[in-house]
Amino acid sequence: MDFQKVIALATRRGIFQPAFDAYGGLAGFMDYGPVGVKMRRRILEVWRKHYVINAGCLELDGALVGPEALFQASGHLGEFDDALVDCADCGKQFRADHLIKGGEEMSRDALAEAISGTACPGCGSILSEMSSFNLMFSTKVGAGKGLSGYLRPETAQSIFLAFPWLLRQNRSKLPFAGAQIGRSFRNEISPRQGPLRMREFTQMEVEHFFLPNDEPKLPTSLESIEINLVPAKGKKNSTTIGNALRTGIIGSSLVATHLARAQNFLTGIGVAKDNLRFRQHGANEMAHYSSDCWDGEINTSLGWVEVVGVAHRGDYDLSAHGNFSSKEFRVPLPGTEREREVWVPNIGKLGKEFKGEAKSILEAIKDVDVKPDISIEVNGNSVTLSEEYMSKKTERGSEMVFPYVVEPSFGLDRILYCLLESSWKNDGEREWISLPQETSPYDLLVAPLMTKDGLDGKAQGILQSALDMGVDAYYDEAGSIGRRYARADEIGIFFSMTIDHQTLEDGTVTLRERDSKNQSRLSIEDALSKVRR
Amino acid sequence: MDFQKVIALATRRGIFQPAFDAYGGLAGFMDYGPVGVKMRRRILEVWRKHYVINAGCLELDGALVGPEALFQASGHLGEFDDALVDCADCGKQFRADHLIKGGEEMSRDALAEAISGTACPGCGSILSEMSSFNLMFSTKVGAGKGLSGYLRPETAQSIFLAFPWLLRQNRSKLPFAGAQIGRSFRNEISPRQGPLRMREFTQMEVEHFFLPNDEPKLPTSLESIEINLVPAKGKKNSTTIGNALRTGIIGSSLVATHLARAQNFLTGIGVAKDNLRFRQHGANEMAHYSSDCWDGEINTSLGWVEVVGVAHRGDYDLSAHGNFSSKEFRVPLPGTEREREVWVPNIGKLGKEFKGEAKSILEAIKDVDVKPDISIEVNGNSVTLSEEYMSKKTERGSEMVFPYVVEPSFGLDRILYCLLESSWKNDGEREWISLPQETSPYDLLVAPLMTKDGLDGKAQGILQSALDMGVDAYYDEAGSIGRRYARADEIGIFFSMTIDHQTLEDGTVTLRERDSKNQSRLSIEDALSKVRR
Repeated sequence: MDFQKVIALATRRGIFQPAFDAYGGLAGFMDYGPVGVKMRRRILEVWRKHYVINAGCLELDGALVGPEALFQASGHLGEFDDALVDCADCGKQFRADHLIKGGEEMSRDALAEAISGTACPGCGSILSEMSSFNLMFSTKVGAGKGLSGYLRPETAQSIFLAFPWLLRQNRSKLPFAGAQIGRSFRNEISPRQGPLRMREFTQMEVEHFFLPNDEPKLPTSLESIEINLVPAKGKKNSTTIGNALRTGIIGSSLVATHLARAQNFLTGIGVAKDNLRFRQHGANEMAHYSSDCWDGEINTSLGWVEVVGVAHRGDYDLSAHGNFSSKEFRVPLPGTEREREVWVPNIGKLGKEFKGEAKSILEAIKDVDVKPDISIEVNGNSVTLSEEYMSKKTERGSEMVFPYVVEPSFGLDRILYCLLESSWKNDGEREWISLPQETSPYDLLVAPLMTKDGLDGKAQGILQSALDMGVDAYYDEAGSIGRRYARADEIGIFFSMTIDHQTLEDGTVTLRERDSKNQSRLSIEDALSKVRR
Repeated sequence: MDFQKVIALATRRGIFQPAFDAYGGLAGFMDYGPVGVKMRRRILEVWRKHYVINAGCLELDGALVGPEALFQASGHLGEFDDALVDCADCGKQFRADHLIKGGEEMSRDALAEAISGTACPGCGSILSEMSSFNLMFSTKVGAGKGLSGYLRPETAQSIFLAFPWLLRQNRSKLPFAGAQIGRSFRNEISPRQGPLRMREFTQMEVEHFFLPNDEPKLPTSLESIEINLVPAKGKKNSTTIGNALRTGIIGSSLVATHLARAQNFLTGIGVAKDNLRFRQHGANEMAHYSSDCWDGEINTSLGWVEVVGVAHRGDYDLSAHGNFSSKEFRVPLPGTEREREVWVPNIGKLGKEFKGEAKSILEAIKDVDVKPDISIEVNGNSVTLSEEYMSKKTERGSEMVFPYVVEPSFGLDRILYCLLESSWKNDGEREWISLPQETSPYDLLVAPLMTKDGLDGKAQGILQSALDMGVDAYYDEAGSIGRRYARADEIGIFFSMTIDHQTLEDGTVTLRERDSKNQSRLSIEDALSKVRR
């Protein structure tokens, strides 16, 4: 199926449509309809099973609007931008790297040089000089002037900022991973391609935190997984994860682990392994926070589409927030514990000498390494504390370090698009979506052969039993049974059950399997237990 | 449990915390942690079962950022505001209706008069004159000046705007309901009270569309439901829904239906019926779109807290979008079909006379009721079409009407808060959260009595079996078994399973029920099947 066919199917059958069409549309925003919501939820169920339930990630659901200081620290205010050129004549705006062949791999300077003097694809005038356009949506929080706030450009920052809280939930033990499913926002310059480049999109992200000297190993169970790799340098490779790690194609054991897990997840929801590759970023392509990054890409009619990025972010984010904010984002490094002598304030003497001011002095030195003759500011005066106000104490302490993080980051909207395109089948007689039952929008169509003689009532009773069992069932009594099968196939309903006169006599139904079209006559109970996931 | 205790428990145990604390916080925004995410998901599962699976609502997931025209049409740009007063001296800002006793029930004029000359609660200076502050967060979409956009203040507008699409998904049949779970945003002037007044929050909304002359009846199965009602006029009432509808306390059968359904949902997730009442809005309190509205309120330590509103919105929203936009939001009214004579353009004559311009003329009158001597604008010129360019045709058509809508709108954040507060128990010996299994954060704690002799390995095997069966299980091996029960009770884990030496011998475990503390010795299989929901 090609792009236009997916879009037409999605609109016709309530999977997704461009949002706000009644008001001329707003590029980069979509609505998901009843069938799309089902498919998204089912993909998320599988994802949550992989990452939250079986891998034990701690799930977070953070706020979407964040304060300016957060995005100053994270680097998004400074560096999260695209190269913009616009046309003074027709007013159109373009991403510079999309107008120049190979532009996405160029450095900003090379791109500025290459784009200089280029004609507007709209009207032919010469385009403006290249400028930077920050991709975050900004807003104001509160009345009057308000505080500057931004819609988060990735869910990841919520997890980084919640790191101290999540660490406590994990009883201060590392490694552990935070996970989040949620909306993110990027004010793309001129988004096209429907669900492939959106201004508002849904991410599933995992931040796997570990001590710099204790990176989690590649689990034995993942070593022999075959994977298609496109390294930044060197040749395309189809090899095992274990081999890629041993030979240095992948430099980090946790990156290797998450490449394997990402592939397991994607093939589990219905992506063919041959259609999937992991491509390493070149130096110019890498985000500001990343030291190594691999994109999981699916082959589509539009070329290779990135659906997941696995990035080694080092301690970029935790150290940024640790250094910019008032909170401790470091952890003690095991093996560095030792005794050391420290100075502590002598509270008795301070009280005697400074009376009411002693409390302010203690407050002022609370987070400071105290030593004799230290000068501090107290209520606007400078106070110097000599050795007589201190005593020595022996403390046990460790070196404090910022943990490292490896992040797999999935894009739900793109995954759904790629699944629709790649699972579409046409054998000349019919068209159908061929997804695993886990990610089909419904488990079961319940269809009375006709709406008389009580067949519809019987069918509705079976529908309710199915729903009560947790089977995702859909009722359809309109039109011929062939027409109903066709409608069910079109959106990939996994089984179809027909209720006919024989059902009233002996309690059997016809169960049809979507891909093979095989039909079998079964008791209602047997049919439902076959359908139940 | 009181407010401070809930907040302390939520922070300590990873339910929720104020967001962005590392950067001094941002009032009105929260993060949900691992236990909070679980509880929210389970509440949503029950909600979806009620409304989407069993009541067959069509679920939508719409964009959060919308264009200006949408909110002009919906009335939110003009009328969705709070009365603001601020202090020129200390800079603090206040909601005027929160500073005056009974202010929330006052009209704007009365409020402006009452607040005049009031002193600032912060510094005692006289406050500014009252002004209006629009509660929508605004942003810019696209580069350069961009287009004005707003974060949606309710999920409802996504459903109204998608009405024509959803109607097609329902094969053009009414009544039907759209449902949506998602984030909404209100730029509250000075939010306090944590999860009770948030700037970013999660709503679950249903828009139940029906023909004005065919309002859905109260289902017989709901008639005898007992409900506590506080009408705007008249006395507090505890009566049945059927009786309240018959005696006119509730004016609409669909409002009555949704009051009953809302109560069923809330009691199903663990709200005690005696703690729940439905209070009708007075005329001053009613939103700009609503003709009748009832708030479902839960009794808490802070007073009655609104967790759901059931509103009769009439055709306010669909007619607004139908009249402001280019799309058809009306439907044919059954029973009004009749033949009528209409004028249609005579294409042959138009072509002969106007040649190349004929196409533009046809385009210009495409959506217009044509009649003789109509004047239209074509390529900048005014053209008048006389009778000779038209012919008469007999058409069958119906009167077109905007459907009505009744809306139950739930606030997830408040529901979770109220559940935590009201389900907290303390019998002097222990503290626990006593929720139904459906909304407990976990079904099961799996706890080895000690971490030696292979008990921990055995326990982890059982954990995995439980997870594979779909049981939401939690593993804990730290500290004494009593301490672990206490930790499980504190967040309301429904069952606890202990693995001891006897487990290794005969495959039995101890299963403890949270509320009764009853313990029974069962085989692993029996225990798991008891735990499975």
